[in-house]
Formats: sequence, C-alpha cells, structure tokens
Amino acid sequence: MTGGLSSLEPKGRLAIIAGNGSLPVHLAEAARAAGEDPFIIPLRNESDQRFEGFETASANIADIAGFDRLFREKRIDRVVLSGGVTRRPDWRDIRPNWKALRKLPLLVRTLVSGGDDALLQVAIGIIEAQGCRVIGAHEIAPGLLARTGPLGAHSPSDEDRRDIEKASEAARRLGELDIGQGAVSVGGRIVALEGVEGTDRMLERVAALRAEGRISARRKGVLVKLCKPQQDMRADLPAVGPSTVANAVKAGLAGVAIEAGRALVLEEEKMIAAADAAGIFVCGIDPGLPNGGLPDGGLS
Amino acid sequence: MTGGLSSLEPKGRLAIIAGNGSLPVHLAEAARAAGEDPFIIPLRNESDQRFEGFETASANIADIAGFDRLFREKRIDRVVLSGGVTRRPDWRDIRPNWKALRKLPLLVRTLVSGGDDALLQVAIGIIEAQGCRVIGAHEIAPGLLARTGPLGAHSPSDEDRRDIEKASEAARRLGELDIGQGAVSVGGRIVALEGVEGTDRMLERVAALRAEGRISARRKGVLVKLCKPQQDMRADLPAVGPSTVANAVKAGLAGVAIEAGRALVLEEEKMIAAADAAGIFVCGIDPGLPNGGLPDGGLS
Repeated sequence: MTGGLSSLEPKGRLAIIAGNGSLPVHLAEAARAAGEDPFIIPLRNESDQRFEGFETASANIADIAGFDRLFREKRIDRVVLSGGVTRRPDWRDIRPNWKALRKLPLLVRTLVSGGDDALLQVAIGIIEAQGCRVIGAHEIAPGLLARTGPLGAHSPSDEDRRDIEKASEAARRLGELDIGQGAVSVGGRIVALEGVEGTDRMLERVAALRAEGRISARRKGVLVKLCKPQQDMRADLPAVGPSTVANAVKAGLAGVAIEAGRALVLEEEKMIAAADAAGIFVCGIDPGLPNGGLPDGGLS
Repeated sequence: MTGGLSSLEPKGRLAIIAGNGSLPVHLAEAARAAGEDPFIIPLRNESDQRFEGFETASANIADIAGFDRLFREKRIDRVVLSGGVTRRPDWRDIRPNWKALRKLPLLVRTLVSGGDDALLQVAIGIIEAQGCRVIGAHEIAPGLLARTGPLGAHSPSDEDRRDIEKASEAARRLGELDIGQGAVSVGGRIVALEGVEGTDRMLERVAALRAEGRISARRKGVLVKLCKPQQDMRADLPAVGPSTVANAVKAGLAGVAIEAGRALVLEEEKMIAAADAAGIFVCGIDPGLPNGGLPDGGLS
C-alpha cells in the first residue's frame, strides 16, 4: 500500500490497545479509512465498546507476555494506545516475559508511586522492547486533532476569554504536576480541577455546585482542557466529544476550549450540532499565541 | 476586665460573624472562656448552628448598612470572621452605606471575578472602614491552632510521609492560585484537589473513586491541608475536626496532616478519640522545617 523502499519489506499490522471510552472505536474506523487493517486489543475491565467488524482479542493490562504473543501472532509492528485506563494494575498481577524483565523494577516502582505520565513512558518502553513502535493516535487520524478557533457557530465572549485565560493557567499548572488536564473557571474564579475522576465527573460536580448556589448562577464559565506541558503525544491526549458538550451544558457553561493540535475531537459533527443547538462554543486555542490564537472580538 | 491604660477607655465588645460549619460555635465558647461577651452575627443562608446562650442577630452578608448599624448599637470594636461562606452574594444585593461607598467599585469587581483571598481582603477593608478592627480566630482562641507533630496515638509511616510531601506540594500550588487548601495523595500520586466543593466533599469523592477501583485499594494515602502562602490569618484558616477524620476514614486514608500554627483544630478531644479508634494519624506539619518538623522515623 505504501510505495518506495518500505514496499520491499512487507509492512506489519497496526494494533490498537483499547482502554475505556469511545476514542478507540473512532480511531479504529479512522485507521481503516486510512487503509490499515487494525487489530484491536480491548483491555479487560476497561474497554466498554464493541468493535464490530474488527478482529479483536482482549487482554489483561498487566499480561506483558500475552501482549507479546499477540504481537507476534498478528505480525504487529505499530501500536496505538487509545482510551482511558482508570484502574492501575497491581504490580503483583504483572506477568512479564524475558524481554520485559530488565524494565520490571522500574515498572513496579512507577506503578506504585508514579504519575500517569511516568507510567505511560514505562509502558511505551516495554511495548517497544517487544519490537513494536508506539505511535500516536494523531499519526493514524490527523483529522481528529482540534483546529485553532471556533469549531461551531458560537464564539467565546470577552468574559469567556477571561475564563479561558484563567482556566488555562490552572490547567497548565495541573499538568506540570502530572495531575490532570482540565479546569473550570466561572467569572474569573477557578471552581473545579480535574483529578483522577475525569472531565465528565468534574463537570457533574460543577453542575451540582451550581444547583446548590455555590457557583454564581449569573456567570456561565468555561472548561479548558490542555495537554500536559511534558506530554508524550503517543498517549492520553485530552479529548472532547458529544458527552463533554452534554455535561458542559448541564454545568451551565458558556463553552469548552481545548488545545489546538494537541487535543482530539471525537464525533465532531455530532458534538458541534449539540453545541450549536445548546448555544455553547467549542474552540481550539493555541496557548503559545496571543489571545490563544482566537480571532479578535469574536461574535457569540 | 483588662488592666493598665486600656481600662481608662471602656473596651468595646467582640462580634463573631458566623458562616457555616461548627467553627463559629467553638470560637464563641473559646471567646467566652477568655472573658469576652461575644455578640454573634449568623449569616443568613450560611450559618447552620445554634448559638444557645449567646446574644445573636442574623444578617444578610451583602447588607453592609445593617452590619454598621449592629456594630454601633452593640458597641462592637473587634470583629472575627469565622466559618465558611459557600454562596457569594450577587453584587446587585449589596446595600452599602456612605462609609463603604468609596470601596464599592472594588467590592463589585472582586465579587464578580476575584478569588476567595482577594474578596476577603475587600471585606476586611469594608468592616474596618466602619471603625472596627478585624482580628483572627487564633487571637481569641490560640489553643485552637494545630501543634507540630502527631496529635493522637498514631504517626505517619515512611510511605505516609512521602504522601504528605507530595500532597503538600500540590496544596501549596493550589494555594498560590488562590483555588483551595487541600490535596489527597495516594501512593505518591495526587488523586484529588479541593476546589469550591470543600474538604468533606473532596474526601467523599476519594471514597467513591476508591470503591470503583480507580484508586489503589492497597495504598492508603494522606489528606494535607495548608494555608495559602499569601493567606491573611484573619480569615478562612484551614480547619479540621471530627467530620474530617470521619471522612478520611471512609476514604480509606492513613491520616491527615495540617499546617502547624496556621490551621485550626476543632473539638480536638473528640477528633483524636475518633482518629485513635480508627487507627489513623492526625498531625501538624511545618512546611518550613526539614521533614515537615516531624520527629524522625515515627512509629505508627
């Protein structure tokens, strides 16, 4: 399928290791559209989607030997890590193989006390020790990356821009601490920070606090999701989709801002239709540009 | 009641402006024990305690003119702000008097978009413009301030100390952003940060995440509450009490660490009895000292 030198040696197959959420399904479809025949490895106790029409074999996240066997059987040469992993395996459950033995002490140490980012680095190292290259979702489906500027009909107001700025600063600091990627600012005040619970649950919290009058009813506010500054693009990119918009609406927010070029947009058409209908904005921001790369004085 | 020069001019009365939670009641009792006759002003829609045996008159938080009238009627010369304020008043509800007029634009601006810390500074300025001095709870009841070291029978283990260090760093950064005072670390990993929801609700979240397996069942973890670095000791000191311990136990934590000398301990005897019975530690830490001021290798 590829020309030039690489056609001399047959290209191996792409594997998608699938955690929870709908990202893996969208990625599988995008990979197929790009001419791949992806082999899906849903993680047990994490993956919550059906991959109809795709070849799959589920695996336990700690079963390194099992992954290696699958990689060899299916002639996998590239692996994408996709979706969330909410349950860290216990180090006692790890089934290593000889290729992973050298990395085992580091894996156990990181599993027990490392941040998400550190753990992903170790996981990538172990997969690559099996002879596969770990690539990013955006290398398979670059169209999923958020563009700069408003994605739908609505744009942030001046007040929303102040909230974007405030929440971006908080999200950036969270990321520096390898804690989370999301923050909500309402009326220039940070009201919620994302920890292990994830974006949807943080937004449910904002909705509850709003209902109790602990967050202003007259100020809407904004959710911002950024990449961690040190983030490896090969895993755990922040993502938004229809459920993010639905929860932002329930939380009474004016909109959602995500990092352009480093965050994924899932089911964009469906998400934008929902955002347009609810009158909220979704926009890509570039933290490196003045004004986040947003056009001046956007209309809302 | 006081000797020396101050007895020449009669000393005015102490007022306690009471937000939610039990701190104001404990403070009222501590003030009486110190020879004061405190006048209690429970905030409407915030105060949730009964002040039996004390003279009280409730007030709306935005009714500056009403506070001024009470201060004059009761000859108040010192005011303590005590307890939580979960609902910010809307600026349209403010009833100013002429003494507060000059500060009104700043008040409105801060109310709308300032952090808690900035808002407290404005509130203190407005009260002092009425001719009262705002003092800290610890000036009335210094015995409520946390001491350095374990307060009960249990001490943090080496693993707990690592969690204390990790959560302290996160809490300090949160404080720098004027967002919150608390953080939870489990196995060296920050799992929750306190936003507007408060400590008890953050701990409920940790308990829920633990029950779902999203936080290790084998690592306990620690709650740390620190003062914000720029914090005015006259308001919003972090506090712990029996409910903190009860929620820490439900969240499966090994213990609670608070900033010695800058955090308040409520109902210490009851809290420590509960902590001792549950086998968890409560300790005061001094972030300026090596090892947080904890004795080396404490036994647990």
